[in-house]
Amino acid sequence: NKTMASIPNEELASFANALADEARKIILPYWRRPIEVESKLEHDRPIAESPVTIADQRAEAAMRKLIEERYPAHGIYGEEYGQVRTDAEYVWVLDPIDGTKSFITGKPLFGTLIACLRNGEPIVGIIDQCVLNERWVGVSGAGTTFNGRPVRTTKGPEDGGCTELKECMMYATTPHMFHPGEESAKFERMCSVVKRPLYGADCYAYGIVAAGVGAPPNGGGG
Amino acid sequence: NKTMASIPNEELASFANALADEARKIILPYWRRPIEVESKLEHDRPIAESPVTIADQRAEAAMRKLIEERYPAHGIYGEEYGQVRTDAEYVWVLDPIDGTKSFITGKPLFGTLIACLRNGEPIVGIIDQCVLNERWVGVSGAGTTFNGRPVRTTKGPEDGGCTELKECMMYATTPHMFHPGEESAKFERMCSVVKRPLYGADCYAYGIVAAGVGAPPNGGGG
Repeated sequence: NKTMASIPNEELASFANALADEARKIILPYWRRPIEVESKLEHDRPIAESPVTIADQRAEAAMRKLIEERYPAHGIYGEEYGQVRTDAEYVWVLDPIDGTKSFITGKPLFGTLIACLRNGEPIVGIIDQCVLNERWVGVSGAGTTFNGRPVRTTKGPEDGGCTELKECMMYATTPHMFHPGEESAKFERMCSVVKRPLYGADCYAYGIVAAGVGAPPNGGGG
Repeated sequence: NKTMASIPNEELASFANALADEARKIILPYWRRPIEVESKLEHDRPIAESPVTIADQRAEAAMRKLIEERYPAHGIYGEEYGQVRTDAEYVWVLDPIDGTKSFITGKPLFGTLIACLRNGEPIVGIIDQCVLNERWVGVSGAGTTFNGRPVRTTKGPEDGGCTELKECMMYATTPHMFHPGEESAKFERMCSVVKRPLYGADCYAYGIVAAGVGAPPNGGGG
């Protein structure tokens, strides 16, 4: 209802954290665990579902349920179960497991991505790394925290950051993710100008940038 | 002294664990921490050393000291400080920080690699992931443990493993690590036959294979 008073960003951020807590609780038991996964039928024969599929679907279903209970007028855009009310003032965007190949292969860098948009503008964003117990929370007007501590991107040499592409490390999940033609050509060109292209950090790479990791005054982790 | 009785593998493994403990204690304070790094002179001007360089060197120096004290006749082959007595019956191979680019950029998958060879044959091998608090220990004749629990590679479909290349995920740190020509061509060919090439797991990828991660009966992590 666009005529209602807007919800404070802090309230939305607090709720987004609750969504991430719920997703984490659901996903972790499927991580490298010998859990019997559900089977569904295809052409009358049972097909095994993967732990990542089950974890993904259950985590999204649980987050959607919490949203429907708390904010029934809000829209939802989920990777597993599609869209509802995406013309609402507030829309939640959910990707329970970003980095499914990492998840499947036992590499712990996959993450749960949660965003809240107001009138199309992102106002809350979360990267939650359930295995690593690391969470980035960005709130419009209030900055970003990493496990509760304020962090920020680097500004330049004074805080250990770079201002020239030739000084930068560049992360991509894989060089094969770019479409042949113009997109690949642009990526190749970037590879040739940065200090070094690196691969395989999944959504973690965004967290690295957000936390200004590597920059002494603002060192990030813990 | 090649005429002495051989050292039990368990004793060497226990000592290797002590080396890994020592390296972990030294490396962790440099991880994403705003620590003043040492400077050395080059052409009479101070040059800043990176945390990874300091951590790498200090961890290796500390491990070498422990080896010299406990087993002064053993050889050492270290990435930072070179070789001594590599014709000895026992030789220790040390790489304090494998995955320096991960370390520098705040990606936690770098590891400390420790091996002990007897007459050129590896008898103890450790991958220690200090940030993740995960350690793989392989001992000749005694199998492999992951954080103390026995693990093994997968055998085939019965334990979730693959027997065909087309079913396998293949990890490499980066596609750019292969020399142009024959080596790159072989890698490209592997990319075209496996299920999918993945990147950026550093030494973690070996641990994933050793622990049979993904295989339900032997699921690895914790």
